[in-house]
Amino acid sequence: MARYGTVEMGGTKTLGAVGSSPDDLSDVVAVPTTDPAETLSQVIEFLDGEQVDAIGIAAFGPLDLVGGRIGVTPKEGWSETDLVGPVRDALDVPIGLDTDVNGAALGEGRWGAAQGLGNFVYVTVGTGIGGGALVDGEPVHGLGHPEMGHISVRRHPEDDYPGICRLHGDCLEGLASGPAIEHRSGARGEDLSGTDLTTAVALEAFYVAQMARNLVYILAPERVIIGGGVSRLPGLLDGVNDRLVDELAGYPGLPEHASGFLVPPGLADISGLAGGLVLAKRAVDRARSSG
Amino acid sequence: MARYGTVEMGGTKTLGAVGSSPDDLSDVVAVPTTDPAETLSQVIEFLDGEQVDAIGIAAFGPLDLVGGRIGVTPKEGWSETDLVGPVRDALDVPIGLDTDVNGAALGEGRWGAAQGLGNFVYVTVGTGIGGGALVDGEPVHGLGHPEMGHISVRRHPEDDYPGICRLHGDCLEGLASGPAIEHRSGARGEDLSGTDLTTAVALEAFYVAQMARNLVYILAPERVIIGGGVSRLPGLLDGVNDRLVDELAGYPGLPEHASGFLVPPGLADISGLAGGLVLAKRAVDRARSSG
Repeated sequence: MARYGTVEMGGTKTLGAVGSSPDDLSDVVAVPTTDPAETLSQVIEFLDGEQVDAIGIAAFGPLDLVGGRIGVTPKEGWSETDLVGPVRDALDVPIGLDTDVNGAALGEGRWGAAQGLGNFVYVTVGTGIGGGALVDGEPVHGLGHPEMGHISVRRHPEDDYPGICRLHGDCLEGLASGPAIEHRSGARGEDLSGTDLTTAVALEAFYVAQMARNLVYILAPERVIIGGGVSRLPGLLDGVNDRLVDELAGYPGLPEHASGFLVPPGLADISGLAGGLVLAKRAVDRARSSG
Repeated sequence: MARYGTVEMGGTKTLGAVGSSPDDLSDVVAVPTTDPAETLSQVIEFLDGEQVDAIGIAAFGPLDLVGGRIGVTPKEGWSETDLVGPVRDALDVPIGLDTDVNGAALGEGRWGAAQGLGNFVYVTVGTGIGGGALVDGEPVHGLGHPEMGHISVRRHPEDDYPGICRLHGDCLEGLASGPAIEHRSGARGEDLSGTDLTTAVALEAFYVAQMARNLVYILAPERVIIGGGVSRLPGLLDGVNDRLVDELAGYPGLPEHASGFLVPPGLADISGLAGGLVLAKRAVDRARSSG
């Protein structure tokens, strides 16, 4: 059986594991994401000697997927870091790279909440907001890759919070990410209770449902998976679902949009690592077909 | 050389032609879109005897693409009309069907402003607003098909027009379609001049640029083609382009987004009919590969 290395690089921590599926995944190793040289050498050290056939990396972005690099990022020291080169040079196996959310979408499609579907979106609502879309089973790329957290949304009439996105202010991420909740209310989402929690969840549902609506109208996905820390606020997913039905106003308003359309991840916290396994397998397939 | 029939069904008129490419397209025949029986029999009558190898139909929606039918539509008498069945029964050739905007996207990709691109969007801004996306060269479908005109947009701070969409009120189509311009200003867009025109174009650019922004963030297209009658208002495309750069706020803010990203159709008014030719060819290919 093939054995793959999978790496999920986040802005604050980097996870690694080996295996061929979520069922036989090794213990997950976590290191803080510090500077590129240190973090990448820890990734290489972990995978060296594991005899993997390929490695998949699902990483924070923006990414230059053609060049295998991080793009220009506010994360200090990481702009234009070559992610693929050092790992391939050290371990000499095929490497697959995609965004963290495209990775999670691939994992959920293979083993999670979107099995059997060709067209769906994985959305994460947490420290940032992002989304990865699969169309005909393939992650969507074009001129770069999607950055779904930065869509514009209508402001809730009772929300005068200016927004926390360093670029757009009040884009979706600026109004509905975990830091926006904390900055607006003075407390982290998971520490809210009573009417503070109710208010925060209603606002959050208002914004996330607009994203779901725009996904329906732009991509016509068969399902939207909503993960990330904020998505676990009590009542949030039901709230988004109710709001989405209102947003669609019956058009298309299919029965599928009312129930079972917005779902939590099937793989809990390992969607991204599972996706790394898929990226690794795809890298092998690509190397074979081109070799 | 193959010879195809192509049909573009709009809410008010239906166009037909035969050929193999825009270069050898026959004269275009136009009939009013009245009731289904009359309109479809006129289509059949036009194509009968033309010895076509296949027929492509790009139609107004919503469509049930699996069933080859119109969905539930406010256009009287057309809900759940079988489009493909009667034409195939009468003419006994493969039939390809897709939305008008997916058709136009296919035509523009093959012969127009998106030649050589796999990932792009064709947007029409006219009586309605719609968009067809190609990803990896294929029209995007999933749970139904996209209905891009119905995304939510932020309202311009000086615009208090309630919106004309019968379902959503002030969705993009409700605020920025041709009828919205006319209803808001009291005159059709093409009849405006002076400051009335300037104001209308600025509002229109504000809304259409939000659509372009959300397309960038959700689909990362390589190009966005903007067609339809309203798109020809003087200064509109430049206005949308300027606003889009502001909307993206440098993220991703690639050089490609600033110039040559938003373009008019390359096929002027025949994008949809050209797309019908592509749909016809695809229907032949599909019949061959399954036969």
